Amino acid sequence: MNPSRRNLNLLPGYSKLMEMARQPFDLSSPDALTTERLAAQVCRAAGFEILYATERVDQAVLDALQSLADESGAVEQFLMMKGGAIMNRIEGFACENRQVLHTATRDIFAAAPRQPAATEQARQELAKLDQFLTELESGVLTNQAGEPFTDLINIGIGGSDLGPRAVYHALAAYSLPNRRVHFISNVDPDDAAQFLSGIDPARTLVNVVSKSGTTLETLTNEELARAAFARAGLDSARHFLAVTGKGSPLENPDRYLRTFYMYDYIGGRYSTTSMVGAVLLGFALGNTRFIEFLRGANCMDQAAENRNLRENPALLLAMLGIWNRNFLGLDTLAILPYSQPLCRFTAHLQQCDMESNGKSVTRLGETLAYKTGPIVWGEPGTNGQHAFYQLLHQGTITVPVEFIGFRESQQGQDIQINRTSSQEKLIANLLAQALALATGQENPNPNRAFAGNRPSLIILADRLDPFSMGGLLALYEAKIVLQGFVWNINSFDQEGVQLGKVLANRLLNHFSGLKQDKNYNGKAKDPLGYALLSEAGMLKLS
Amino acid sequence: MNPSRRNLNLLPGYSKLMEMARQPFDLSSPDALTTERLAAQVCRAAGFEILYATERVDQAVLDALQSLADESGAVEQFLMMKGGAIMNRIEGFACENRQVLHTATRDIFAAAPRQPAATEQARQELAKLDQFLTELESGVLTNQAGEPFTDLINIGIGGSDLGPRAVYHALAAYSLPNRRVHFISNVDPDDAAQFLSGIDPARTLVNVVSKSGTTLETLTNEELARAAFARAGLDSARHFLAVTGKGSPLENPDRYLRTFYMYDYIGGRYSTTSMVGAVLLGFALGNTRFIEFLRGANCMDQAAENRNLRENPALLLAMLGIWNRNFLGLDTLAILPYSQPLCRFTAHLQQCDMESNGKSVTRLGETLAYKTGPIVWGEPGTNGQHAFYQLLHQGTITVPVEFIGFRESQQGQDIQINRTSSQEKLIANLLAQALALATGQENPNPNRAFAGNRPSLIILADRLDPFSMGGLLALYEAKIVLQGFVWNINSFDQEGVQLGKVLANRLLNHFSGLKQDKNYNGKAKDPLGYALLSEAGMLKLS
Repeated sequence: MNPSRRNLNLLPGYSKLMEMARQPFDLSSPDALTTERLAAQVCRAAGFEILYATERVDQAVLDALQSLADESGAVEQFLMMKGGAIMNRIEGFACENRQVLHTATRDIFAAAPRQPAATEQARQELAKLDQFLTELESGVLTNQAGEPFTDLINIGIGGSDLGPRAVYHALAAYSLPNRRVHFISNVDPDDAAQFLSGIDPARTLVNVVSKSGTTLETLTNEELARAAFARAGLDSARHFLAVTGKGSPLENPDRYLRTFYMYDYIGGRYSTTSMVGAVLLGFALGNTRFIEFLRGANCMDQAAENRNLRENPALLLAMLGIWNRNFLGLDTLAILPYSQPLCRFTAHLQQCDMESNGKSVTRLGETLAYKTGPIVWGEPGTNGQHAFYQLLHQGTITVPVEFIGFRESQQGQDIQINRTSSQEKLIANLLAQALALATGQENPNPNRAFAGNRPSLIILADRLDPFSMGGLLALYEAKIVLQGFVWNINSFDQEGVQLGKVLANRLLNHFSGLKQDKNYNGKAKDPLGYALLSEAGMLKLS
Repeated sequence: MNPSRRNLNLLPGYSKLMEMARQPFDLSSPDALTTERLAAQVCRAAGFEILYATERVDQAVLDALQSLADESGAVEQFLMMKGGAIMNRIEGFACENRQVLHTATRDIFAAAPRQPAATEQARQELAKLDQFLTELESGVLTNQAGEPFTDLINIGIGGSDLGPRAVYHALAAYSLPNRRVHFISNVDPDDAAQFLSGIDPARTLVNVVSKSGTTLETLTNEELARAAFARAGLDSARHFLAVTGKGSPLENPDRYLRTFYMYDYIGGRYSTTSMVGAVLLGFALGNTRFIEFLRGANCMDQAAENRNLRENPALLLAMLGIWNRNFLGLDTLAILPYSQPLCRFTAHLQQCDMESNGKSVTRLGETLAYKTGPIVWGEPGTNGQHAFYQLLHQGTITVPVEFIGFRESQQGQDIQINRTSSQEKLIANLLAQALALATGQENPNPNRAFAGNRPSLIILADRLDPFSMGGLLALYEAKIVLQGFVWNINSFDQEGVQLGKVLANRLLNHFSGLKQDKNYNGKAKDPLGYALLSEAGMLKLS
């Protein structure tokens, strides 16, 4: 099996789709949305339905997108990835040169996992975690006063924050009684100050998450937190946990109650189902529900192996995204969950998608001749309807939308007003928006007319619970890597974040140099403002 | 005074700028960022500095943008707006036909306000609020058990939620002791359930905010909240406040402890300094700090009257935005505050900007020949650096950035590591990002090369406090309306949200009709999913 790895614009299907894109399906034409179309354009797998009748595709375009997917060998590469191939690389240039095995962290249900060694490592960490959680629940492990731990502060940033935070909010309704998780991520000292003033450290665990053990923000916030524990007269070594790579500076039993491992074959933005998410989610939800979350992700991982895009939600989303991006020329993607518990899910997807696919060179280091990852943005509906939907409907930019909805609410605390429940109002609004964007509406008042013909799709499941949340997370992870394979880019590195780090360190060295100068006055007018930028502007980049 | 109200592309300066945009200033050329340039391209007013040396403009382009602003009469129209002209209208078509007087709510410090009648109404409401807050603080007004109120739940959506929520988070560090505010906005029943389970209703006020008194989400959530108070054996009329228009269904002393008025000359997305924000911010901060917030906004409103864009931060941001949007062709705008307390400010600006300027027709109802409002998005730094900055630096889309930073932290709880504080690390990162985006960096490894030449600016103030927060809010409000005047669009209506509402109501009528059918089974398979969309697809739009 040797998939093509050719550039998108060199695949046979590319020019055909370019031709088709000159007259894409018109959603606003009368009778565009027939019952037959609505029934036909649904993809079902892993507990999800993707309703895509409101995308600007017909069966011929879908067939051509299927051919393009086949020509790219995207699914074959996905299987290679799961099997342990070195997918994180740029041929011929210095690079990370790593396997990509986040799927192995949930491939724990099969007798024969696709990459047995990595899954065995995952199982070992899960067993350690289960043991730890059991000790917490049984009262074997308590604080110095013999009381149970009720709160956990997660200190991490980027992949060690966004995905776990999004899932925690999504599933907070399923938390164990008297368990809460808080998050400190930003190097902004006001971020840590906010939480450290509001909790009782005596009953709090602190989970420090950094693969390298050298992340500036995380180490700084860890020191802020340790200082707060010391002020409270507590031994932080009995409260602090570490999630890190083997051999990192954080691997130090004198300073941490427990240490859990993550491995370099798991990228930060794909690490929610590794120990990075597991420790805090296990603390909040308990082991059983966390395993259900992994089961949902694994179920979607399996569905993502299907070569037929009409049966594979991740491949379908990937190829519809490429249609909108490369053939219809749309630069952004709004992801709009009609579920308040998913309030941070789009922020996670911003990282997962934009850090993976915001790239300009191929896997051979060539400059790309086509566009890659879009700008991903969004807020939950119905809130967004009262915010930015004006531009979606009547602005001068067309924004493709992925709506996410659930048939039932999580907590079941609902109310009937005018004979419909809030949940029905929520889902009716979701459906109405997809329809309104597609069909538009004529009006003799030009300010009240809607051009329509704006594409969207709906991701639908019965209920937001641990299983479906796992599936939703894996759906987007798989979509993103499949798109990367079609674009022939490396979706697994992030060299674009390096220059800012280098310059920030140079400025900080400059600061600390100033402070060693006996004439330096930290309260001098404008030590951090324009004068510094001016200074910085003269620093030469090597 | 009769400003032009001509379309942007018919202004004399337009074609000149189009010509200049063929070879814009190259930020990545050697020595582009000279000390002289960094010193020259700073605009100072109302306690803010705008550092714009890293935008792709030189003095000639700035002169041309100044001419364009003059030709558009943007500042004259801003003055007309403040004076009470009917700016919310489309000539020759049915429209809201209203004044736009959010600036009057903070024009309370001058002996001669620009629109005395509206400012007098604002003063009356502020006096009522001061009285109410004094009663709360002095213990004259308590719950039925004689205890003080400690919590306030704000029920509102869109403009009655986003702006007040953003400012509350920004200024939470300045809250009175033992005062907390919570927000319910989404019709998703899980949104209300989350808060109603976590607070003690006996010590809680509920602030119901809706100008019309008919907002679906707000009335539904109010009923959910009243039911929770009834279950707790409490008389909700002694806990519920209303902020609404005179004569609305919410104006009912039998149901509300107090009622505060908002007026139809204040649009929802511009209403944070009206009673919409005042009640909850006054409860949290106390009257004195809330008035400081108004003073900051008023100070920026005055600066926004200056016709010289080099001295007017709002006009400068407006014209640089138009340069990036209409002349450099950039469709989005990232607003990235390096301040965790501003975590919800970009969500507010999404509404304020995209609902105002996501328009396709002029104020005469003509279809526009040019682009209007960009997609606004962003998350706080440094978090974003570990998320989507990869795409900002190396993606295939250029994203202009507005960074926001402060020289000092809010809470002053900081730590020195490697001889620099967290606040210094934060601001060094901000500056480094602006530099890295501008200068780029060559590298023989194409995956580690940065093209640079990506524009940004920095909005800098000493500290995020009530005064500067007022200024920041007013800065963006003024920027947005000035851009709308240059684009010759109505930035004050939102007809684009109507079609979705109409369709949602139609679907809900369909639901409630189904329920009246004796064969209807609410638990039938898929009552809300595909079958409904199929049904909905056949509903004809009138």
